[in-house]
Amino acid sequence: MAQNDKKLVEAITPMAQDFGQWYTDVVTKADLIGYTSVKGCMIYRPYGYAIWENIQNILDTRFKETGHENVYMPMFIPETLLNKEKEHVEGFAPEVAWVTHGGSEPLPERLCVRPTSETLFCEHYANIIRSWRDLPKLYNQWCSVVRWEKTTRPFLRNREFLWQEGHTMHATAEEAEAETIRMLNIYADFHEKDLAIPVIHGRKTDSDKFAGAVATYCIEAMMHDGKSLQAGTSHYFGDGFARAFGIQYSDRENKLVYPHQTSWGVSTRMIGGIIMTHGDDSGLVLPPAVAPIQVVILPVAQHKPGVLEAASVLRDTLAKSFRVKLDDSDNTAGWKFAEYEMKGVPVRVELGPRDIEAGKCVIVTRHDRAKTEVSLENVTEAVADALKAVRDGLYERALANRNARTHDCTSIDEINSALEQHGDGFIRAMWCGDPACEDAVKEKTGVGSRCIPFDQEHISDTCVCCGKPAKHMVLWGKAY
Amino acid sequence: MAQNDKKLVEAITPMAQDFGQWYTDVVTKADLIGYTSVKGCMIYRPYGYAIWENIQNILDTRFKETGHENVYMPMFIPETLLNKEKEHVEGFAPEVAWVTHGGSEPLPERLCVRPTSETLFCEHYANIIRSWRDLPKLYNQWCSVVRWEKTTRPFLRNREFLWQEGHTMHATAEEAEAETIRMLNIYADFHEKDLAIPVIHGRKTDSDKFAGAVATYCIEAMMHDGKSLQAGTSHYFGDGFARAFGIQYSDRENKLVYPHQTSWGVSTRMIGGIIMTHGDDSGLVLPPAVAPIQVVILPVAQHKPGVLEAASVLRDTLAKSFRVKLDDSDNTAGWKFAEYEMKGVPVRVELGPRDIEAGKCVIVTRHDRAKTEVSLENVTEAVADALKAVRDGLYERALANRNARTHDCTSIDEINSALEQHGDGFIRAMWCGDPACEDAVKEKTGVGSRCIPFDQEHISDTCVCCGKPAKHMVLWGKAY
Repeated sequence: MAQNDKKLVEAITPMAQDFGQWYTDVVTKADLIGYTSVKGCMIYRPYGYAIWENIQNILDTRFKETGHENVYMPMFIPETLLNKEKEHVEGFAPEVAWVTHGGSEPLPERLCVRPTSETLFCEHYANIIRSWRDLPKLYNQWCSVVRWEKTTRPFLRNREFLWQEGHTMHATAEEAEAETIRMLNIYADFHEKDLAIPVIHGRKTDSDKFAGAVATYCIEAMMHDGKSLQAGTSHYFGDGFARAFGIQYSDRENKLVYPHQTSWGVSTRMIGGIIMTHGDDSGLVLPPAVAPIQVVILPVAQHKPGVLEAASVLRDTLAKSFRVKLDDSDNTAGWKFAEYEMKGVPVRVELGPRDIEAGKCVIVTRHDRAKTEVSLENVTEAVADALKAVRDGLYERALANRNARTHDCTSIDEINSALEQHGDGFIRAMWCGDPACEDAVKEKTGVGSRCIPFDQEHISDTCVCCGKPAKHMVLWGKAY
Repeated sequence: MAQNDKKLVEAITPMAQDFGQWYTDVVTKADLIGYTSVKGCMIYRPYGYAIWENIQNILDTRFKETGHENVYMPMFIPETLLNKEKEHVEGFAPEVAWVTHGGSEPLPERLCVRPTSETLFCEHYANIIRSWRDLPKLYNQWCSVVRWEKTTRPFLRNREFLWQEGHTMHATAEEAEAETIRMLNIYADFHEKDLAIPVIHGRKTDSDKFAGAVATYCIEAMMHDGKSLQAGTSHYFGDGFARAFGIQYSDRENKLVYPHQTSWGVSTRMIGGIIMTHGDDSGLVLPPAVAPIQVVILPVAQHKPGVLEAASVLRDTLAKSFRVKLDDSDNTAGWKFAEYEMKGVPVRVELGPRDIEAGKCVIVTRHDRAKTEVSLENVTEAVADALKAVRDGLYERALANRNARTHDCTSIDEINSALEQHGDGFIRAMWCGDPACEDAVKEKTGVGSRCIPFDQEHISDTCVCCGKPAKHMVLWGKAY
């Protein structure tokens, strides 16, 4: 058990000391990822991948309930196809991986590995959309994409990452805009209810839109260190791609018109968001909805007669309702406690000879280490309550952190002093709409515009930067 | 409805006239795939992808039940990593796609897009396997892989295709060999029970082994035209890769030794196998276990009062147990019949005013068009029986085709005359074990060795080619 002992001894770096190093320690010591010889391309190890599978299951069900169908497009995009929509190619060409040879032969045209698949979907839609009867098309794809980033970080910025990308086509602009918001709301709801991560809905400013989009909507979440994570985006394209790709349909009056388009996506980046929102100095803390192990049963004094048998019975009972693991290995109790705290298992159940005699067990919730003695007769209800308490506790804690680190400011000086006094966080401040002011705020304070929140408040009459009349309240912050 | 009418009018090419064209017609007209501008890279359309999702669900459950965990490895393999195992690189290097540039910069080392991931798993295993306590490692991955084939065909031979690849490491050769056979048996069982495709288990001859394997096991299925499809493979590697990659563990005596390895995979090729085993001149016929729509309800005279209401009630009843679609569109009855036959929906339920009055409906099974009138009260049981009848009927029909097209031969002349008389099929004939004879049989008759079946029979004493003493009965055939 050389490895195990080592793990127990080598604690992770405390968050307060070095948040970045804490993050790296957690992703490796909780066995989420492995590094490879290709920079920025990581291994999703079983425990990390199981979180992704749980995320996929929940979201895929919601996508299907709202009428979406899954497809799979090729991973390669010919250069001429990528070039068809001008803004799109300018946004993505600098960071794509190029395939130039098949076997020993050079290809007639080089192919990029998809950084996103708008162009592929549009090529297909041009072939299959003919009539108003063919609309809407509500397609989604689960796949990996590649963006050749210079700086990389597990889950947050990888050269290859896993995601889903929805691509839809609609008869009217209104329908497409409604779809864009509908999917954003599904993302927001998933974050709040299942991941216990409070998010702010909003629209990106024009300088921060997706390459080729008319409007980009996003959800922004605050991490434990006060920085912002863009946790999901939803784009409205108008008919820009449709025109570039010649996608037309006959409407009910038999007139040829262009359809309106959306795309929307979330990625394994969400796992980074879970870690940085809920984790603590003992490691990961997982929201129950996506935890690979929701309940771990640790037998106490397991060598004593009857303990393992009772633990097995308990495991079988709980396994009917939850994802359960019974650890009856010969590792020490101390090692087991540390291991499942590191892995962020939401609920731990301890069961020893005295508990068995009294018909009880002890339930410990991971986020606050609260201990409750419960009767074995009601253990399923008690564990369900404990899991709910973890979800609610995590959400409240994250919301409290966000509230404590959100500051309303009316001048550049106020922004700087808020950041100096309280550290990184969200700044809410008014903006005139001029991209020059957006750039100036970033230059003078270090915080950039994260979004124009849907829930607007009137902080002041004038732009925080130029003093001209304000148009919007903007959420500003440092971004991952 | 110009498209729909066209579909109804343009029947598919009959199998007997041109089997290859029939296949192409089915994959496109049943909306399984779409072509793209990259040769050999196809679109899995919703109906085709849904079959794959059903396959994934069943197999993934079986893999997890047998203790396997899912992971995700990078899609890129550095050239030096691919080169580490000599036979392996010789097998795959001629058909890989090479990434040479990231953005505008040439890469320091070119990367191939994974054709299979043994090398990536081995690099990872070298990092995480230390002790006998770390074994076995039972990993699986669902992903797409790329092989730059010259000739391509939807599902059967694509440059990019979807698959799963299991990669396991074991303490002993015996354990690894048992895993190899266990996974082959899971594939065989899935084919026979769920896909209704009878298969022959066997071992590949040395000339047909996977690049780098000690032994390759396979299941071979006969297609409707008498050709053979390799439907799944399972490889035993010994410790060859472990030595090449320096993977060692301390055994219970604290001695450093090499672990033993397997890999096994099935791909979207199985969908090609389903089409060519069960399809007919009206289109696809899907085995119920993987059919996206198991039951289609077609209302008769749906404009009459009460018909659509009764059909909805029936849909809601059946949806509790099956994947059901109610087609209440204004397409003609003729169009609907043709459409769902083309799409291979196993069971059709017809419900009209007279049926409703009599408390009945009509159930039609796709493979034999058998009609049964059943009481609406027992409709769930009746549909369950009908689905079972489809699965059993498909299996029996496929088995009868295979039996009719399998011939035992004792000489090259007998092989040639069997093929001439009966067309393509399986030949069972003895072999001395010499690769020269294997090549000679193929050259003289056109059929190659498919496998050495586990169920051996004694056809004759001597090799069908050279007349020397025979070692094995070999299954010979033409392969897809």
